[in-house]
Amino acid sequence: MATLKKKLTVRLHDTDAAGILFYANQFLYIHDVYEELLQLIGLPVASMLRDEPFILPIVHAESQYLKPLTVGDEITIAVQVAKIGETSFVLEYELLGVDGQSVGKAKTVHVAISKQTEKKIALPEKLQRALKTFQSAP
Amino acid sequence: MATLKKKLTVRLHDTDAAGILFYANQFLYIHDVYEELLQLIGLPVASMLRDEPFILPIVHAESQYLKPLTVGDEITIAVQVAKIGETSFVLEYELLGVDGQSVGKAKTVHVAISKQTEKKIALPEKLQRALKTFQSAP
Amino acid sequence: MATLKKKLTVRLHDTDAAGILFYANQFLYIHDVYEELLQLIGLPVASMLRDEPFILPIVHAESQYLKPLTVGDEITIAVQVAKIGETSFVLEYELLGVDGQSVGKAKTVHVAISKQTEKKIALPEKLQRALKTFQSAP
Amino acid sequence: MATLKKKLTVRLHDTDAAGILFYANQFLYIHDVYEELLQLIGLPVASMLRDEPFILPIVHAESQYLKPLTVGDEITIAVQVAKIGETSFVLEYELLGVDGQSVGKAKTVHVAISKQTEKKIALPEKLQRALKTFQSAP
Repeated sequence: MATLKKKLTVRLHDTDAAGILFYANQFLYIHDVYEELLQLIGLPVASMLRDEPFILPIVHAESQYLKPLTVGDEITIAVQVAKIGETSFVLEYELLGVDGQSVGKAKTVHVAISKQTEKKIALPEKLQRALKTFQSAP
Repeated sequence: MATLKKKLTVRLHDTDAAGILFYANQFLYIHDVYEELLQLIGLPVASMLRDEPFILPIVHAESQYLKPLTVGDEITIAVQVAKIGETSFVLEYELLGVDGQSVGKAKTVHVAISKQTEKKIALPEKLQRALKTFQSAP
Repeated sequence: MATLKKKLTVRLHDTDAAGILFYANQFLYIHDVYEELLQLIGLPVASMLRDEPFILPIVHAESQYLKPLTVGDEITIAVQVAKIGETSFVLEYELLGVDGQSVGKAKTVHVAISKQTEKKIALPEKLQRALKTFQSAP
Repeated sequence: MATLKKKLTVRLHDTDAAGILFYANQFLYIHDVYEELLQLIGLPVASMLRDEPFILPIVHAESQYLKPLTVGDEITIAVQVAKIGETSFVLEYELLGVDGQSVGKAKTVHVAISKQTEKKIALPEKLQRALKTFQSAP
């Protein structure tokens, strides 16, 4: 079991005139971590788009915002695989402030889609195996 | 009872190298509609940030993606007030394609926060009244 | 000779914690106008990406910022074709406030590239003709 | 004399349906490097917005695009102070691919503006001194 963690700094362009992180940008942050996860399990986005017969679009996404974040804030994002289904998987993210306190949470649901038929397909086996490495304890 | 509807066209910068709308950008679209709603009920964002003693940050947001959208696609977004609570309210959005089919859904939960104390406060009465105009039928 | 004009409202996600339009987002605005121009001349982005043997990437872009813009500000963007070359063309944009005053300017240089060879090619004739319609007076 | 360099990876949300970096996002990248420069010289954006009597808005920005970039590409951005004027300064950026080849260039012009009067002011001396550390050789 493993958790991937990534540090980042809130940038000016992530904030808005209310002085805080614009809510939609939390979804950019977690996707960056997802892209690192794909890289780690040997399936970088570029390769998937170019070489694989499937894509993994997001069909559901949600975020919670527990504390306002502003420019210069340093956060750590941890991602775990929460569920591996027949044709889909669920990722759960937690965003932590420098004091280790939770500042936000998020979840994305990904479905395996055949590029050719544009229909759902079973999760490729090598992907299933790779995702298990990052699966949260049951 | 009223529903606010807004038309928009998916722009190139909303898409990604997979050729479709990047999922986080659906949250930009619905926020644009929310800003129009605020304008309509006499509480434009600029005034709120400058003049009101409260802000209405999003504490929860979620989206569903029912059909891939790509550059040039025209969609209509409808928003309704799904719930008005003591200190919060819930907006529900539906995204429709040109054929009237649902291509996505979304929900945002907003909490009234005092600028001074940074604590939750009761929804200002005039805001409550205004939101009721756009409340979905029970 | 024609000028394409488009109105837009500065949205919260276009601003940053300094309270004003984040400079990079002016480039989003002008590209939206460029996409409308392409649509008008019968070459919508989606068709170009799917059907044409060429693309028109931007090789140079610049913006000037004459007045700070903030959320809720309404602006009009006018675009004209400033130059049509052998393999490239130049667009010039002006951003006007509600009082008609210039609040910003921008310029983009586009080059015709063959999808197959990835080399510069002569501007397709139908594109040249279409661009002339929006060419600024000499 | 010093040059600040920063590595980054092109993320999916930086690309568009043409499969490459959307041109405006190069301006996000260079601003991230600028924010690191400000941090390094003891003037982080958050402090400037909160504590200083001035801001440093961009009045001109330009980019050149020498090679298309796509998702997963690793680049290094180097920034130098190209000019320090009475009330303004100029930053020049170069983007390098993994092979050390230039893939893009950029320039931003910043003006010191008093928060109180909203007029140009002389560059604060400590800022001038700090910028000199990163000034390119004459």
